[in-house]
Amino acid sequence: MQLAIDRDRLLADLRALGEIGRGADGGITRRALSVEDAEARRYVIERMRAAGLDVRHDRVGNVRARRRGRRGTGGPSVATGSHLDTVPSGGYLDGPLGVVGAIAAVEALDRAGVETDRAIELIVFVGEEGSRFPRGTIGSAAISGHVPVDAILALRDPDGVTFADALATYGDEGAALEARAEAGAIDSFVELHVEQGGVLEAQNLPIGIVTAIAGLVQRAVRFDGDANHAGATPMDLRRDALLAAAEWALAIERAARELGAGAVGTVGKLEVLPGGKNIIPGRVDAICDLRAPNAELLSALDRRALHALSAAAARRVTASERLLQRVEPGPMAERPMRAAERAAEAAGLQSRRMPSGAIHDALHMAELCPSTMIFVPSIGGKSHCPVEDTDPRHLAQGCEVLARALALLACD
Amino acid sequence: MQLAIDRDRLLADLRALGEIGRGADGGITRRALSVEDAEARRYVIERMRAAGLDVRHDRVGNVRARRRGRRGTGGPSVATGSHLDTVPSGGYLDGPLGVVGAIAAVEALDRAGVETDRAIELIVFVGEEGSRFPRGTIGSAAISGHVPVDAILALRDPDGVTFADALATYGDEGAALEARAEAGAIDSFVELHVEQGGVLEAQNLPIGIVTAIAGLVQRAVRFDGDANHAGATPMDLRRDALLAAAEWALAIERAARELGAGAVGTVGKLEVLPGGKNIIPGRVDAICDLRAPNAELLSALDRRALHALSAAAARRVTASERLLQRVEPGPMAERPMRAAERAAEAAGLQSRRMPSGAIHDALHMAELCPSTMIFVPSIGGKSHCPVEDTDPRHLAQGCEVLARALALLACD
Repeated sequence: MQLAIDRDRLLADLRALGEIGRGADGGITRRALSVEDAEARRYVIERMRAAGLDVRHDRVGNVRARRRGRRGTGGPSVATGSHLDTVPSGGYLDGPLGVVGAIAAVEALDRAGVETDRAIELIVFVGEEGSRFPRGTIGSAAISGHVPVDAILALRDPDGVTFADALATYGDEGAALEARAEAGAIDSFVELHVEQGGVLEAQNLPIGIVTAIAGLVQRAVRFDGDANHAGATPMDLRRDALLAAAEWALAIERAARELGAGAVGTVGKLEVLPGGKNIIPGRVDAICDLRAPNAELLSALDRRALHALSAAAARRVTASERLLQRVEPGPMAERPMRAAERAAEAAGLQSRRMPSGAIHDALHMAELCPSTMIFVPSIGGKSHCPVEDTDPRHLAQGCEVLARALALLACD
Repeated sequence: MQLAIDRDRLLADLRALGEIGRGADGGITRRALSVEDAEARRYVIERMRAAGLDVRHDRVGNVRARRRGRRGTGGPSVATGSHLDTVPSGGYLDGPLGVVGAIAAVEALDRAGVETDRAIELIVFVGEEGSRFPRGTIGSAAISGHVPVDAILALRDPDGVTFADALATYGDEGAALEARAEAGAIDSFVELHVEQGGVLEAQNLPIGIVTAIAGLVQRAVRFDGDANHAGATPMDLRRDALLAAAEWALAIERAARELGAGAVGTVGKLEVLPGGKNIIPGRVDAICDLRAPNAELLSALDRRALHALSAAAARRVTASERLLQRVEPGPMAERPMRAAERAAEAAGLQSRRMPSGAIHDALHMAELCPSTMIFVPSIGGKSHCPVEDTDPRHLAQGCEVLARALALLACD
């Protein structure tokens, strides 16, 4: 099967979306259900209609568009898609690639005259980033039933605006579909996304096939020591909260390295109080972020990170922690992973299986149906920032692998 | 010799000064040459006059008051004193104790009918804390000649106000003495101060006699790594600036402990960027504060702290540093130390010799004449904060030891 992605069209779509919400630093800010998010969504809906898709939306604001199969637009679909909302000052690929890349994929199938047995469904998931409402992956959580629609509609942003009220000004028109998918309504799911890490780049591979969405534990930790004069307090009379936190951060790194198998641990936020250059740190507030592709490994990493807090006692520093969130890992399924691998082979591209350290809508879709993701390399491993980028060749290759995988999954 | 400190009067003076510049948190803020600093100074000048002292001031705003000796008010004096300015939201003892404590000491000598050969000089040093102008210990630096008076008058505060302009509204009247002391004009110097550390408290001793003012090296250090996604970036592809900074801070602690002999090292200020809970730290800005009672030890500690930066390279993190300041240690002199020890013995009090980790005006006075300091315990080792306190018994004992030491030094 010859299959040609229209790379210029793909890049034009990505550029056009990249202008919506762009700030002075080049970063893009489209909070969920904001004016900018709505504008990006209108752009995509027009593109979908121009591509001949049947475009509808559901009760939480997900766009649900279908390409007919031989059996019509009804029946179990093979689904793909991603999101249009961003982190504050994010990049132009995280989300949009999986949306306009899916349009590029079905347009390539059209041009190649490829018909499928099952319909192909394109979904624009609402509120993936969690940068407005107090949770992310909202759209997929609604479709999978992970979170009841009523609970989603009641979510409030920091200004007290409910999801339901924000949705009313979001631009939905006409009758909305039920968000939650009926059993068997979606056959399988594949999401195209930038890797956001540097593994594919380091190994010079164009395609990653995701084996699991890593689970996540985040804990807030507070170290309480004693803020004393840096000159007048001998070393053995100190209770230095920063040194206790330093040992803990290094212990988390050591634990993640020793456990291996995709476990990662990070202390990304750490504040030293009072912060005077001649005052011994009396308090440190920090957050650790622990991830692993399976639940046992995640728990083991979490146990080691918690155990590392006990070392603070030797410094007479007290360490207290509270769980901010735990998200269970989402295993991807063999059938779509295998379809993606065969698609890469057919496109003449090398691929590797790998976990996703970042959370995506595929996490919840996997609760509903066999799912996987297709990764393309991130230059410098960068994402969630203005310099987020991918070689245009890799972008088009990702779309081709997606198109071929969808065709394989949608045919008996 | 019977010598009775009027403890009620001492505490009343400390309380009265503690009301000048007191903020909502109970902390006291009297920036150098501010309205509050001037008010405290007027209070002290009135008390000095009431105590029968001959009160004058010098060109940089130091108060210079004298108690006659048998040889009159002229000739080489035995000097004591401290400062009235504070850090922002500081305590009520750091500075004032050495000022009103000196008044209490000469009043006790008066009541006991003690005459001395040499005059006793009480100095209120201006601008000790460095919380307004870009350096501290201004008054003593002028008296010792460490900094030329013209350079001091040209110092500017953050609002651009020069020291000379601030002095003009400070309340000095009449002819000012030259600030810089003539050779031999001051025979010796003893400063009473709270310890600011927890050594005396831990050892249950009422009196410390200072052997040296520790020297100081402060360096600003910047660690540059790479801010990437905490989930998507495997451990071995990271360049985590915080972990490099953590190793450096722990290495400074290790170096100070291993060198011992009064060496202390602290990382009190440390900022993590970008500081997102799911972002690997890309940059850390930190300041280290290294102190030691002699120059060789200070240099050894500084070398080890600098060498510790090289470990960052193993993480592919670059570490760059710049010297903020180096202050050479000031050795105290045997004659006044021995006089203070004999004074403590005469008062029936145990004492120990110890370095001062904090910088005081005695650092510059030691350039001019044999000097030492008398420390009293700080409760919990706390200072530069609203809870700074000392047992009233210890305050009075410190004044008695000061009075006896002055009497010993001022008699042939």
